[in-house]
Amino acid sequence: MHLTRDAFLASLADLPEPDDAAIAAARARQGELTKPARSLGRLEEIALFMAGWQGRGIPRLDTVQAIVFAGNHGVAARGVSAFPPAVTAQMVANFRSGGAAINALAAACGAQLSVHALDLDRPTGDIAEEPALSAAECLAALQAGADSVDAKADLVFVGEMGIANTTPAAALCAAALGGTASQWCGRGTGLDDKGVSRKVAAVEAALALHGEHCRDPFETLRRLGGREIAAMAGAILAARRHRIPVLLDGFIACASVAPFHVHAPGVLDHCLAAHRSAEGGHTRLLEAFGLDPLLDLGMRLGEGSGAAVAVQIVRSALGAHAQMATFAEAAVNAGSVAPQP
Amino acid sequence: MHLTRDAFLASLADLPEPDDAAIAAARARQGELTKPARSLGRLEEIALFMAGWQGRGIPRLDTVQAIVFAGNHGVAARGVSAFPPAVTAQMVANFRSGGAAINALAAACGAQLSVHALDLDRPTGDIAEEPALSAAECLAALQAGADSVDAKADLVFVGEMGIANTTPAAALCAAALGGTASQWCGRGTGLDDKGVSRKVAAVEAALALHGEHCRDPFETLRRLGGREIAAMAGAILAARRHRIPVLLDGFIACASVAPFHVHAPGVLDHCLAAHRSAEGGHTRLLEAFGLDPLLDLGMRLGEGSGAAVAVQIVRSALGAHAQMATFAEAAVNAGSVAPQP
Repeated sequence: MHLTRDAFLASLADLPEPDDAAIAAARARQGELTKPARSLGRLEEIALFMAGWQGRGIPRLDTVQAIVFAGNHGVAARGVSAFPPAVTAQMVANFRSGGAAINALAAACGAQLSVHALDLDRPTGDIAEEPALSAAECLAALQAGADSVDAKADLVFVGEMGIANTTPAAALCAAALGGTASQWCGRGTGLDDKGVSRKVAAVEAALALHGEHCRDPFETLRRLGGREIAAMAGAILAARRHRIPVLLDGFIACASVAPFHVHAPGVLDHCLAAHRSAEGGHTRLLEAFGLDPLLDLGMRLGEGSGAAVAVQIVRSALGAHAQMATFAEAAVNAGSVAPQP
Repeated sequence: MHLTRDAFLASLADLPEPDDAAIAAARARQGELTKPARSLGRLEEIALFMAGWQGRGIPRLDTVQAIVFAGNHGVAARGVSAFPPAVTAQMVANFRSGGAAINALAAACGAQLSVHALDLDRPTGDIAEEPALSAAECLAALQAGADSVDAKADLVFVGEMGIANTTPAAALCAAALGGTASQWCGRGTGLDDKGVSRKVAAVEAALALHGEHCRDPFETLRRLGGREIAAMAGAILAARRHRIPVLLDGFIACASVAPFHVHAPGVLDHCLAAHRSAEGGHTRLLEAFGLDPLLDLGMRLGEGSGAAVAVQIVRSALGAHAQMATFAEAAVNAGSVAPQP
């Protein structure tokens, strides 16, 4: 598709819903499997969720797509990250040679990893002074994200690499959901207190400059986001159009769609929260989304790493759903015993 | 080995400790991998834990043993379970034909499953009226558990099947750790309020009858436990003697070793808590052990099902630890940037 800003915003009003018949079939099957009712807890809920979005009573995980986007940020010049901007390209090379955490974690969960480096030699504008992206640049990043999604995938997750990108992510959250800059600014990759102060100041300046112009989610994303952030949003929203379930990774993946959640409640109904990141603002963001994360392991790496671990939970859930015998098949007594003396 | 009661108790005083050199090697490696320090959170802690117990700087998961024990309980006649005792043998047949949750979940996590049915035609004594087991029967069950462990396994978890076995598990917890019967009695496989009342009454009667005799963990286990419960304890303690790390499943797996934890603090140092079960007493039990579970998914099935899901977390942790490149290998800048203006 050739995206325009208006077409993009209009697409948010007409999104597919889950398949109720597939959910009903999955629920009926769960009731027949050889276990006490509801004893697999969230594993059962995951099976129903996946059934609805895949439109299959017995959902599958043959193709799991891990998509990592990378971008650079003008605001990095303000000393808001513990690492220099050159690390973005170095880590992209590391992804491509197979040495990063996401390579190992994607392999462990059986995901197919693709890496999209978005104009690393052209950092965004410094959001404390100007918009991050022009409208054309933002549309191109959204389009790159949308194009990265395989319409036949059974599950998708997105990750990112972009030195300093918790700063635009914090700005996006504050603009979309309210709250102060300091409530959204965490330590990122390991900022000290002075670094956090610089980060809060940058977000405050960005909000003062752009806040009144953030009238729709596209404009919020364009002014305060970044290429990899817009691409994540583009991929997550494209997955919805394809009715592919998504595992949301941590703070930046969630921040990328925060403006859309506010604009179009329900737009994230096809998403599960993979984990609670240790990055400061993530808990607040998950609460705003009304999502209860599957994992809480103190991870804060990005790259889609938390989502990759959570894929394993989904795999367990679907394995039990698909492979267990029913009470009838196994000749197991399913009924409650009559109360005894 | 031929186990005697005294030899068994003596063995608890002389247990191997983790390999500090392997932990140090793993910690040094974590500091060199291409990620911000500590950004993989508990995945990093898991890698160090596994390194220590396996005695390898780069621990592995080639052989994961899932061991399920089954037993029947005289106390079932008091109507303390939602299912009739015949279901224990039916579910053992289901395990053997591959149709149970643990079959699917063991396959999903790459574990080798073995099932040990322990004298299902000879239920234990009704703990509200008599000891569950004779000393010889309890030793035989401990021995069966110990013998089930492959000394070469990289990780072990144990599960159980035994209609009514949350009742002896609750009694074990109350005898070992204090608290009232009702604090340890949950709904098991789905008891209604009247069933829970019968269960509390049975545990209260058992505590009144046996409490003063529970002077050591063997006696507590013999009087209040059951064959599959003693076998779980035997396997978990044998794993410690082999220095094999263990993932503790839910309420019953943890209850099996509660008396040993009280008698010999540190005896569970080779254990990680896999998950927080929805069964009422499990949270209290984990707190007594000082263990923070890896997962909290509302599961309450038993069979080792929660541990099987958690194996996947360990697999992710060790995959990242083993496969990631170092900063030097990947030519990624590891240093913090100097603070900028």
